[in-house]
Amino acid sequence: MSFEQIKIVLVETSHPGNIGSAARAMKTMGLSQLYLVSPKILPNEESIALSAGSSDVVENAKIVCSFDEAIADCTLVIGTSARARHLTTTAITPRQCGMQAIENAAKGKVAIVFGRERIGLTNEELLKCHYHLNIPANPEYSSLNLAMAVQLVSYEIRMAYLQSQTENSSQKEYPIAAPSGVVAEDLEYFFERTEKVYQEIGFIQNNAVMKKLRRLYLRTAIQRNELNILQGMLTAVEQLLPSKHRK
Amino acid sequence: MSFEQIKIVLVETSHPGNIGSAARAMKTMGLSQLYLVSPKILPNEESIALSAGSSDVVENAKIVCSFDEAIADCTLVIGTSARARHLTTTAITPRQCGMQAIENAAKGKVAIVFGRERIGLTNEELLKCHYHLNIPANPEYSSLNLAMAVQLVSYEIRMAYLQSQTENSSQKEYPIAAPSGVVAEDLEYFFERTEKVYQEIGFIQNNAVMKKLRRLYLRTAIQRNELNILQGMLTAVEQLLPSKHRK
Repeated sequence: MSFEQIKIVLVETSHPGNIGSAARAMKTMGLSQLYLVSPKILPNEESIALSAGSSDVVENAKIVCSFDEAIADCTLVIGTSARARHLTTTAITPRQCGMQAIENAAKGKVAIVFGRERIGLTNEELLKCHYHLNIPANPEYSSLNLAMAVQLVSYEIRMAYLQSQTENSSQKEYPIAAPSGVVAEDLEYFFERTEKVYQEIGFIQNNAVMKKLRRLYLRTAIQRNELNILQGMLTAVEQLLPSKHRK
Repeated sequence: MSFEQIKIVLVETSHPGNIGSAARAMKTMGLSQLYLVSPKILPNEESIALSAGSSDVVENAKIVCSFDEAIADCTLVIGTSARARHLTTTAITPRQCGMQAIENAAKGKVAIVFGRERIGLTNEELLKCHYHLNIPANPEYSSLNLAMAVQLVSYEIRMAYLQSQTENSSQKEYPIAAPSGVVAEDLEYFFERTEKVYQEIGFIQNNAVMKKLRRLYLRTAIQRNELNILQGMLTAVEQLLPSKHRK
């Protein structure tokens, strides 16, 4: 799979700044193939400025005259539409879009098409898409900036790619808690000392406290160096105990 | 669960335009609680212009003087960091962040904190976070615009919310520690006391120990009754200190 198999197509953009911001959004997620269908204003200095370090994506953008030309060599075409929720059989989320794109990119080229800033894609254009991408935005305010939409979709493509890599290598994305490297015996010793010291101080008078402390430290998958610190703290407290001075 | 339980905190933003773009990104995904920690330039017309239809989010933004103030009433604090991949035990993806935020928002307030445009969050600030969010960007070009990062995180929060609505809540596939119900302020107080007591005993002589203890207790999503025990243990040790007897 190569990210070069996946192209982002912007149809008749009005603002050259959006081209630059979209290029930046793409590059942060590893995408580089930008197609511009008849932009109202060709990429200019504003595009370059907003692309930040992604001017290469803007400069290498292919400018074509028609939607058909942009998608001609693609085996999968996904069009974005705020109206996609009505196209029930073909509507997909950004997440599904990412997975579809990565799966298909192993075999052929993929186009993800974003429409005009105000009016999106035409019905005729939508009919040429295999799937219709709908970003599940706030129904009361769904006005995503064009580059923001490109960012979300590019992100989901990257996430799907990373997931496919870890699945292949039979690694799991989760869990978070790292293995602790502390054997039960050492932890037990720590619990025993804690109980002894705090009994002598007079803080521990029944089993309930130690039960709760056990739960706390067992849950957290304590690391070796952390346990060393807690042991050091106990030793420091021990030095203050009357029994220590009696010896 | 209410989206109002989740706040987006921007620390010392340099560009007022970013405040507006972040507000727009939030609102498209249903978020409204924006906190600004000492912005270099207060929200202005540029912020309003870039917020598009989200000027309400900008106008209602709370401006506070410190990071601590912004997170004081939160039971879960997630900080963004490009360096988070090294914080192996606490690093989470935007997707995990979304799920954590939604899960926790049922019980307490959540802060998701974004650092300064150029230098992000300080190490001191990162140490106060339960988790560290790392956007899995292109390693060769990971320069996400601040508002883009806010967009991705807000999107994942919304996706997690929508998923929680359709899913059986008894299914939990992600073994991240449960939200704890302890606000950041109380945990800070515990850390301060610990440092003070163990400095007096002579055990703590540099910053390294407190850093490790912070990581340990933040990671474990400490419960109210557990914190009470640890506070009680500190009080018991305090009684043994020479300074206590001098009084």
